[in-house]
Amino acid sequence: MFESAELGHCIDKQTYRDEEGKLREALLNIQYALKERNEFPVVIILGGVPTAGRGEMANLLTEWMDPRYLRTDAFGAPNDEEAARPPFWRFWRVLPPKGRIGILFGGWYADPFWGWDGEQDAARIDRRIERIVRLEKMLADEGVLVLKFWLHLSRGQLKDRLKKLASDKKTAWRVTESDQQFLKQYDRQIEHYRDLLMRTNLADAPWRVVEASDSNYRNLSVGRQVLETIEHQLARPSVKQRRVDAPPLVSSIDGVRLLDRLKLDYELSKDDYKKQLEVLQGRLNGLSLHPKFAELSVITVFEGMDAAGKGGSIRRITAALDARVYRVVPIAAPSEEERAQPYLWRFWRHIPPHGHLTVFDRSWYGRVLVERVEGFAAPAEWMRAYNEINDFEDQLDDANVIVVKFWLAISNQEQLRRFEERQAVEWKRFKITDEDWRNREKWEAYIEAASDMIERTSTPTAPWHLIAANNKYHARLQVMRHLCDALEARLKRKEKKA
Amino acid sequence: MFESAELGHCIDKQTYRDEEGKLREALLNIQYALKERNEFPVVIILGGVPTAGRGEMANLLTEWMDPRYLRTDAFGAPNDEEAARPPFWRFWRVLPPKGRIGILFGGWYADPFWGWDGEQDAARIDRRIERIVRLEKMLADEGVLVLKFWLHLSRGQLKDRLKKLASDKKTAWRVTESDQQFLKQYDRQIEHYRDLLMRTNLADAPWRVVEASDSNYRNLSVGRQVLETIEHQLARPSVKQRRVDAPPLVSSIDGVRLLDRLKLDYELSKDDYKKQLEVLQGRLNGLSLHPKFAELSVITVFEGMDAAGKGGSIRRITAALDARVYRVVPIAAPSEEERAQPYLWRFWRHIPPHGHLTVFDRSWYGRVLVERVEGFAAPAEWMRAYNEINDFEDQLDDANVIVVKFWLAISNQEQLRRFEERQAVEWKRFKITDEDWRNREKWEAYIEAASDMIERTSTPTAPWHLIAANNKYHARLQVMRHLCDALEARLKRKEKKA
Repeated sequence: MFESAELGHCIDKQTYRDEEGKLREALLNIQYALKERNEFPVVIILGGVPTAGRGEMANLLTEWMDPRYLRTDAFGAPNDEEAARPPFWRFWRVLPPKGRIGILFGGWYADPFWGWDGEQDAARIDRRIERIVRLEKMLADEGVLVLKFWLHLSRGQLKDRLKKLASDKKTAWRVTESDQQFLKQYDRQIEHYRDLLMRTNLADAPWRVVEASDSNYRNLSVGRQVLETIEHQLARPSVKQRRVDAPPLVSSIDGVRLLDRLKLDYELSKDDYKKQLEVLQGRLNGLSLHPKFAELSVITVFEGMDAAGKGGSIRRITAALDARVYRVVPIAAPSEEERAQPYLWRFWRHIPPHGHLTVFDRSWYGRVLVERVEGFAAPAEWMRAYNEINDFEDQLDDANVIVVKFWLAISNQEQLRRFEERQAVEWKRFKITDEDWRNREKWEAYIEAASDMIERTSTPTAPWHLIAANNKYHARLQVMRHLCDALEARLKRKEKKA
Repeated sequence: MFESAELGHCIDKQTYRDEEGKLREALLNIQYALKERNEFPVVIILGGVPTAGRGEMANLLTEWMDPRYLRTDAFGAPNDEEAARPPFWRFWRVLPPKGRIGILFGGWYADPFWGWDGEQDAARIDRRIERIVRLEKMLADEGVLVLKFWLHLSRGQLKDRLKKLASDKKTAWRVTESDQQFLKQYDRQIEHYRDLLMRTNLADAPWRVVEASDSNYRNLSVGRQVLETIEHQLARPSVKQRRVDAPPLVSSIDGVRLLDRLKLDYELSKDDYKKQLEVLQGRLNGLSLHPKFAELSVITVFEGMDAAGKGGSIRRITAALDARVYRVVPIAAPSEEERAQPYLWRFWRHIPPHGHLTVFDRSWYGRVLVERVEGFAAPAEWMRAYNEINDFEDQLDDANVIVVKFWLAISNQEQLRRFEERQAVEWKRFKITDEDWRNREKWEAYIEAASDMIERTSTPTAPWHLIAANNKYHARLQVMRHLCDALEARLKRKEKKA
């Protein structure tokens, strides 16, 4: 991995001057072309041996290009808002939109976790690497161009450089304790990073190792690779055109789908409902006041056919909670800013901090429901979404965010009855639109998509709860029960640990 | 102010039940109508005597209405990100977009500052009140409906309530030290708040004082006022239609405008430029490394005719700085999310935290330049913008954000020369569009608008620097000089204080 970056590459001053001028103009041009095309963003990640010039490289790239369309973010210790959410949240926050370039410094490789410290848990490392691989794969699939540089120095070069920096009063402050430490453990560290780089060296986002002892060579190497990679991506067919058909999902050959077998009708009197609801709301309220609640967050996801009773169920949850603790996020068509980002971005921005509950009224599952059925997403896109979504929810779970998902199931006849009722009652007319009627015509396609979704995204940590919703009362109680159970189970686990 | 809220209002259980049902339905309807019309947001602020039920009221309003289109935020001690920015930033962050309702709890009145503590500086209070008045006035002008409630308890009622809460094990924790303190100083506190409420009792955002000892009365009073006020606002002509013409600004009768008198041509050789630039960039870099730099932020604003050299000047600034320290924000047409907010919102979201510099390439001054000239803003809107902008920058200054504003001035002939050059040179063609040519036809109108702007928004803390820019070299050095001077002066002031 690092062999050809220890050959002593260098470029003389005159050549550098000539080449830099040309490169600069070309970079500026390609940057404007990127902006004009407005089809994909570029993420640049700078890793490397200490003092190899990551900061200088970021500054130089910004100097060469137009800083209005390029933004740099560095990641130190997480601040309050970051620490209360999953680790990747801070990266999603600063992801550049289409047409822009973002330098993320070390990005998801910046974590001190990656430094070798002699006693790392192999399983944990595997897990983290796996997560990075999935993230980069997903970004690439969404059209994000990810450029990863490793600025390399050999042991001898690092030693010389630290000595030189330390000997000059003006630069001595740049040499930190951890730099010295790196030098001492050079071989182990490099071995460790070699492993990391190899395992995250993806076809769509390969590592670009650059010898950094001669800054002329380093600068031109990085600059040209940025240029050529963007040029190449611009010359490729657009993401939309690249979408290939995925192999079709074959429904069961007898035509019976998961949701066809669900019992939808239950009897429940209004009085029983009221009594039980009160108990459950009290229980939920109590759980939200549990001291350990401040260490976790809850996300509830509501999906289901139109008029399945999502709104009513949501209101029974929120009525049990303090308004400062929860937020309801209705998901409709994405906004302009959201359309300029990978599709999960719009959900990442609403991830609650610890101590809060967020209700999603429709969700990221739109990708495999409405987007699939209406053809807004190509088969290859919604097919990979199952994995992307599972990975997303896995990250949430890891960060103590409980995900509770509900599919509210009603029969075709019941939907018709409710639609007609809505049209008849003056103040319910807001709730019924022409689109609802159009969607109704695609009932079978939705049932098929929903059945696939439930099967492919019900995980042990975030299972789908199928709620029989022909009887509203029954449905609301079931929702409350599952939510309370999930929350209680997690709080108990937390108590035991403490 | 509080007299009629100490009359012992109350409503019996049966009446309450009947009324609540009706109110609830009406609130839900008006909320949907608000969403459908999508013309203005509603901000609800809940103040009052301790234990009068602000939390209960927020919960109840959320229960009555559809929680998907209503969001509640409370404001405790500022977190990391909030503490590093002006005090109002946190409110701008959560302002509801058009069609939605936001409960901001105490909002800008929640600050403990407002509690009477026996030794307050009258001048500071005046200043804060003034700022709130301006904010609410601006929000009202932008169409935001601000509803402010004061939930009142008389001395005797508060005493009884605290006693009752304290005597029950389940509620005793709700009585805090500061509640007891409030009771002890009841008369002084109320006197103090009476003054605050009276001075912030605006025609567009009056205080609504509600007796809160009987919760039935309190709930219905608040609920009905929310309902009726939204109804009233929906029935009014829309903000657009309400815009009245402002009296015209009369330009000087001899037709000579501020910018006509500016000397635009300076001689400077490329060699001299390079030498001086290097010195200035070194100076700026040094200032950014000053230990006190971490306690302030810098905003530079670039305005000027097309092709005046904004981009080039900006790059000379950024080249002197570490890429992690600055951000360049180009301002073009507002996005969908931005259009759903008061016009200053899109700039508030880019306010840098301390230790950072943000360059705005065009800015909030678009309101009094392009929006005025093109008629996107009505006269009454851009006329009031001068004050709103001055107030915005004053807030920034107060929070240790230095604002350095540049108007890059070129002559009409020089612009023509540059436009033609851009069209001739292959890689500069990106920089010239049909719109640039169209804008050029309105040259005179822009000069007039810019002259007014400079005159009306040059304040001692944030003056406009007029930069003669026919010679690019001269302009860039002037920009660097003013920026360094402003930053140095502020750092010196900080040093002295320390």
